[in-house]
Formats: sequence, C-alpha cells, structure tokens
Amino acid sequence: MCEYGLMIFSVHVEVRLRPGIADPQGSTIERAMPTLGFSGVSGVRVGKSIRFEIDAADEAAARSEAEDLCNRFLTNPVIEDAIVELEPVGVAS
Amino acid sequence: MCEYGLMIFSVHVEVRLRPGIADPQGSTIERAMPTLGFSGVSGVRVGKSIRFEIDAADEAAARSEAEDLCNRFLTNPVIEDAIVELEPVGVAS
Repeated sequence: MCEYGLMIFSVHVEVRLRPGIADPQGSTIERAMPTLGFSGVSGVRVGKSIRFEIDAADEAAARSEAEDLCNRFLTNPVIEDAIVELEPVGVAS
Repeated sequence: MCEYGLMIFSVHVEVRLRPGIADPQGSTIERAMPTLGFSGVSGVRVGKSIRFEIDAADEAAARSEAEDLCNRFLTNPVIEDAIVELEPVGVAS
C-alpha cells in the first residue's frame, strides 16, 4: 500500500448518538454532577472518538475511504452519526 | 443555577489514552481492516467523546469547571488525557 505519491492523512471520527436516542451513560454522569459539586451542567452526551491514519492519493480519496469505513463498521447508522475530520500529515514512504 | 448574567457554553471533551498505553480496541479494529477491504489504515486509537453544556459567568470560569470535571471524573489521569473545547452558545434565562 506504499505506492509512490501516496499521502498520509490523520483522521478523527467522532461518533455520536443521534438526537432523541436515549443516552443512559450521559444521563448517569449528569445526575451525579450536583452530588459531586458541579452545578450548571446539562445535556451530557457520551460518544466515541476514533483517531487513525490513512494512506490515500488525495484528500477526496481519504475522506471517501474514511466515510465508507464509518458507515460500514465504526457506527451503527440507525442510532449514531459520525463527524469526520481529516488533515494531511505527510507523504507515505 | 440560573442567575442573571450567566452564559451557556457548549463543551466538547475528547478523552484519549496517553501515548504508549495499549489500546486493544484500536488494535482489534486495525487488524480487522484488511479483511474488511480497507488498506492503508494504521495507528487506530479509540477514545471517548463527551459533550455537555455548562452555565458559567464567563469563558474562563466555564473552562476551569470543565477541566476540573475532566481531571476528577471524566478521565483517569494515569492513563488518559483530555482535550477540552468550548464555545459560548447563549445566555442562561
């Protein structure tokens, strides 16, 4: 996969529960806050953050592969959506 | 907690394993990639993404409370670190 001219992209995927989907983990954190001495915290939602590097010919190819990966394996599209951010970090040797 | 003049800040906390800490979940995803038809993916690291809103007098107070919360409850500082991002989204009624 180290063909001449491939670039390396750093990818950050944030997987979030869709609005309206119950988030028991977030609710538990939120309910605990006042007891722990933190007031004024609301709307706690917990998701996943996945970072990786991907070799691709250009940014469009990298984004396409990352989004495909998200839709097929990293998220459950019925209840989750994903935000994909990527930036070039170098050239594959 | 809705005193006059409080602002609402949207907070995003990304909790990551510190460099060098083993990430079995990330390794498993990475090993599965070639079989699933994705080549060129490396360095997969899985963390948590926590979003919430916080009422505070100003951005410094909001950041201070969010970072305190991270250090005390949302992360295990021995093996994890956190990136805190916040932005004002309105005024508490």
